[in-house]
Amino acid sequence: MNEKLKSRVYTVLDRAVTGDPHSQICSTFIISLIILNVLAVMLETVEELSLSFAPFFEAFEVFSVAIFTIEYLLRVWSCTADENYSRPFLGRLRFALTPLALIDIIAILPFYLPMIIPVDLRFIRVLRLIRLFRVFKLGRYSNSLRTLGKVLRNKREQLSITLFITFILLVVASSLMYFFENDVQPGLFPSIPAAMWWGVSTLTTVGYGEVYPITLAGKILGMIIAVLGIGLFALPAGILGSGFVEEMQRQKGVTRLCPHCGKDIKGN
Amino acid sequence: MNEKLKSRVYTVLDRAVTGDPHSQICSTFIISLIILNVLAVMLETVEELSLSFAPFFEAFEVFSVAIFTIEYLLRVWSCTADENYSRPFLGRLRFALTPLALIDIIAILPFYLPMIIPVDLRFIRVLRLIRLFRVFKLGRYSNSLRTLGKVLRNKREQLSITLFITFILLVVASSLMYFFENDVQPGLFPSIPAAMWWGVSTLTTVGYGEVYPITLAGKILGMIIAVLGIGLFALPAGILGSGFVEEMQRQKGVTRLCPHCGKDIKGN
Amino acid sequence: MNEKLKSRVYTVLDRAVTGDPHSQICSTFIISLIILNVLAVMLETVEELSLSFAPFFEAFEVFSVAIFTIEYLLRVWSCTADENYSRPFLGRLRFALTPLALIDIIAILPFYLPMIIPVDLRFIRVLRLIRLFRVFKLGRYSNSLRTLGKVLRNKREQLSITLFITFILLVVASSLMYFFENDVQPGLFPSIPAAMWWGVSTLTTVGYGEVYPITLAGKILGMIIAVLGIGLFALPAGILGSGFVEEMQRQKGVTRLCPHCGKDIKGN
Amino acid sequence: MNEKLKSRVYTVLDRAVTGDPHSQICSTFIISLIILNVLAVMLETVEELSLSFAPFFEAFEVFSVAIFTIEYLLRVWSCTADENYSRPFLGRLRFALTPLALIDIIAILPFYLPMIIPVDLRFIRVLRLIRLFRVFKLGRYSNSLRTLGKVLRNKREQLSITLFITFILLVVASSLMYFFENDVQPGLFPSIPAAMWWGVSTLTTVGYGEVYPITLAGKILGMIIAVLGIGLFALPAGILGSGFVEEMQRQKGVTRLCPHCGKDIKGN
Repeated sequence: MNEKLKSRVYTVLDRAVTGDPHSQICSTFIISLIILNVLAVMLETVEELSLSFAPFFEAFEVFSVAIFTIEYLLRVWSCTADENYSRPFLGRLRFALTPLALIDIIAILPFYLPMIIPVDLRFIRVLRLIRLFRVFKLGRYSNSLRTLGKVLRNKREQLSITLFITFILLVVASSLMYFFENDVQPGLFPSIPAAMWWGVSTLTTVGYGEVYPITLAGKILGMIIAVLGIGLFALPAGILGSGFVEEMQRQKGVTRLCPHCGKDIKGN
Repeated sequence: MNEKLKSRVYTVLDRAVTGDPHSQICSTFIISLIILNVLAVMLETVEELSLSFAPFFEAFEVFSVAIFTIEYLLRVWSCTADENYSRPFLGRLRFALTPLALIDIIAILPFYLPMIIPVDLRFIRVLRLIRLFRVFKLGRYSNSLRTLGKVLRNKREQLSITLFITFILLVVASSLMYFFENDVQPGLFPSIPAAMWWGVSTLTTVGYGEVYPITLAGKILGMIIAVLGIGLFALPAGILGSGFVEEMQRQKGVTRLCPHCGKDIKGN
Repeated sequence: MNEKLKSRVYTVLDRAVTGDPHSQICSTFIISLIILNVLAVMLETVEELSLSFAPFFEAFEVFSVAIFTIEYLLRVWSCTADENYSRPFLGRLRFALTPLALIDIIAILPFYLPMIIPVDLRFIRVLRLIRLFRVFKLGRYSNSLRTLGKVLRNKREQLSITLFITFILLVVASSLMYFFENDVQPGLFPSIPAAMWWGVSTLTTVGYGEVYPITLAGKILGMIIAVLGIGLFALPAGILGSGFVEEMQRQKGVTRLCPHCGKDIKGN
Repeated sequence: MNEKLKSRVYTVLDRAVTGDPHSQICSTFIISLIILNVLAVMLETVEELSLSFAPFFEAFEVFSVAIFTIEYLLRVWSCTADENYSRPFLGRLRFALTPLALIDIIAILPFYLPMIIPVDLRFIRVLRLIRLFRVFKLGRYSNSLRTLGKVLRNKREQLSITLFITFILLVVASSLMYFFENDVQPGLFPSIPAAMWWGVSTLTTVGYGEVYPITLAGKILGMIIAVLGIGLFALPAGILGSGFVEEMQRQKGVTRLCPHCGKDIKGN
C-alpha cells in the first residue's frame, strides 16, 4: 500500500504524463508557481512595489518555499519507486545529486540559510537573487531548456573551435587598437583587456558608442575589423542557431518520406 | 435581377480576379486610397503640414470615410451571395465578425464615434491613430500579409519554444547585470525589469549606448552574454525568416527530388 | 580597311577578351584610370589634400576626361561594327542610349557643362560629385555589378513582398512609438515620419542611440518590436544575400556531377 | 645514433601524435606556455599589474624566450630528419622560411633585437606588442586556424567579388551622405573618406552613434541605405561563415546522396 502510494506520488510529480489528470494538474500548478516566483523576484527589485506590497511579497515567498519544500521532500521520498534509485539510502543520495534535484534544493536553500547561520546584508542580497534560479526548475517541464542542453552537447566541438577563433580575433584586434589609441585616449584604452570591451562591442555589432577609435590608423583598423571580423564573430551564434533548428526538426521526427517510393529523405 | 447585381458586386469587391476589368479597377482604387490614407495620417502629425493643409487633410478624411463606408455597406449587403454567409441575418453577422470585416469597421469607426458619444481630447488623439489600422485593409489584397500570417501559424511551435528560451536568457542576464551594476549606477539599473532594457538592447545588438555596464564584473558578464546570447536571441528572428523563405518557395512551387526514386517531392 | 580598323577598335574596347593582349592592356588601363578617378574625387574632398595638390588634381582630371572622351567617341564611332547597331545614324543613337553608354557620357559631362552654360557654385559641387558615377563604368568590366543586377532582377518579386512587410512594420512601430513618446520627448518624436528614424535605427539594429524611448510603455513596445521585428526586417537583406550566393554558384557552373552515375546534382 | 635522436626530436616536436606520450606532453607544455604568454602580454598593459608584478613578468618573459629559443633551435636542427628538408644547409634554410618557422623566429626576435641594435622607446613598445604574435604559434597545434586558412583560400574568389561590391556601396553611400551633411555638420562629415567612418558604422549595424545624419535628405538616404545596404554588407561575413561550416562538415566527412543513383557523394 505504502509502496503503491510512493509509486503514484513519483508518477504524479514526474513531468506531465499525457492522459494522467493528477500529473497534469500538479505540473501546471508547479509551473505557474515557478513563473510567478520569477516575476515576484524581479518585481521586488522595483522599489515602489517592494515598499507598497512588502507583506504580500513575504507571504508569497513563505507559501512558495513551503510548496517547493514539500515537493522536494516528496520527490526524495518517492524516488526509490524508480528502479534507478531503488536503494533506500544510497539511491536517495544519488537522486539528490542529479542536476534537477540540486536545482530543487538550491531553489529553497536561500530561505532556510539565514535561519541556520548568521549572514550579513550583502549576502542576503545574493540569497535573494539565487531565488531567481528557480527558473531552472522549469527545465524538468520544458522541452526548450533540454533542447538547448542537447544542442550545446552536439555542437560542443564546433562551438569550441569557433569560440577559439573568436578569442584570437578579439585579442589581436584589441591589442592593435590599444596600440593605436592608447596615446590619444588613455582613459578609454588604458590596457589591452580594457580595449577588449571595445572589441566585443564592435565585433558583436552592439556598438554602445561610448568608446570608439578617433585616430586615423584606429579608424581604418576599426573599419577593416568590422567588415571582416563580424563574419568570424557571428560563427558561434550561427552554429548555436542552426544546431537548434536541427534539434527541433529531429524531435519533430522530420523523417520525411518520399510520397512516391516511401523511403526516408534525410532531414532538411 | 437584384440577386445577379448582388453577386456581381460581391465578385467585383473581392480581391482582384485576373481578367475582370471592373474588379481590377475597383481594387486598384481601394488600394491607392488605403496607401494615401496611411500617408495622410502620418503627414498630419508633422505640425507644419497639419497647419498649412488642414482643410485638405479634413476633406480627404471625409472623402475616404465616405468611400470606405460605402465599401463596407456593399460588402455586408452582398456577402449573402457567398454560400458561406447565405442566410440574410445570421450570415451577415458571421461575415461582419470575420477579421477582415472587423478591420473594415475599425477603419471607419474613429470618424463616427465622436458624433455619437462625447470624447475628450486625449481620446481623439487615440482615434486619429486608429485610422492607421486602415493599413491592415491591405491584407485582403496583398499576399505579403497573408504569407506572414501563414508563417506565424506554421512556425507557431518553434517560435514559442525559442521565445521562451529568449525570455529565460533575458531574465538571467538582466538579473545578474542588475546585481553587479545596481550599486554603482543606481539610476540606470534601479531594478531587474529596468535592467531588461539593457538586456534587450544588447542581445538584439541594437546597443543604443545610453546604458551599459561600467564595473569590471559587469563588463566581463556583458562580454560573455554578448558573444553567446546573441546566438540564442537570433533564433526567433531566424525562424521567422526561414519560415518566410520556405512559404514563398512553396507558393512558387519549388520542386525537390527524392534521393531514392528521383521523383518530385512537393515543396520544401 | 576602315571597316577592319573599326571592327578591331570595337573588339579591343569591348571588355577583356582572354587571349587578346591589346584588349587586355586597354581594359586594364581604363579600369586603373577609373579607380584612380574615384580615389581622386574622394581625396579631393579632404581640404588639406585639395589645397596642397590642387594643380595635380586638376591635371589628372583633364587627363582623365581626355581619355574618357576619346574612349567614348571611339565607342560610338566603332559601334556600327556590331550588327546590333549597324545603321550609321540610328544604330549609333540606339547604342548611345544603352545604360553603359549613358554612364560613359555622364562620366564626362560634368567637365564640359560649365563651358557651355553658366553654372553657380552650388551646382558645381553637384557636378564634382557626379564624377563619382565614373565608378559605374566598372560595370562593363566587373562581374560583381552585373551579378548584382541579375540578383535584383531574379529576386524582384520576393524583394518587393518583403520590403512591403518591412514598410508596414515600420509604419506601425513608428506610429505607436510616436503615440507613446511624443508627450515626453516632443523634440525627438515630433511626428510619425520623424519617429521612423528611430524605427529604422532600431529594426536594422544599427541603434545610433541619439533617440530612444524613455516612457515605460515606449520601452516595453520597443523591446517587443526589437525581438520580433528584427526577424522581419532582416528578410530583404537575407533574400539579397542568398540570391547573390545562388547567382555566384550558377555562374561558376556548379552543375556538380555525381561521381557514380555522372548525372547532374542540382546546385547546393 | 645521432640520426635516431634527431628523428625522435623531430617527431616529438611535431604536433601531438596520438599515442606518443612524449609528443603529447611536449605539445601540451608548449601550448600552455603560448597561452600564458598571450595573457602575460595583455595583463602587462594593465598599469597596476605591471607595476606590482614587474619582476614576475620579466622572469616569465626570460623563461618563455629561453624555451621558445630552444624549441626553435631544436626544430631547425632536427628538420633534416624530414625528407623534404633533408639537405644540411639548403634544407634548413627552406625550413626556416616556412610560415610556421617564420612565426617561431618572430616570436623570439623582440627579445634579442634590443641587445643587438639600439632602439628608442617607441620602438620598444612595438616590440612588446609583437610578442602577441606568439598566439599564431598555436597555428601548428590548432585545427581552427588551419581551417580558417583553408576557408579563406576556398572562398577567395567569392570574397573578393563581394568585398568589391561592399566597397562600391560604401563609396557611393558615403559620398552622397557627405554631399547632404557636409554643410550642416562640417565637423563630422568634413570629407568623403571621413564620411566612410559613418558608412562602415551604419552598414555593419555597429552604429556607435557619435556621427549620424541630421538633415532630412541625409536621414532619408540613411534609412534607404540601412534597409538595403545591410544585405550587401553582410555578404562577406555570410560567405566566410558558410565557408567555415562547409569546411567543418568536410572534415567530419558528412555524406550526401546522389538524387539519381542514391550513392554517396563526398563532402558538400
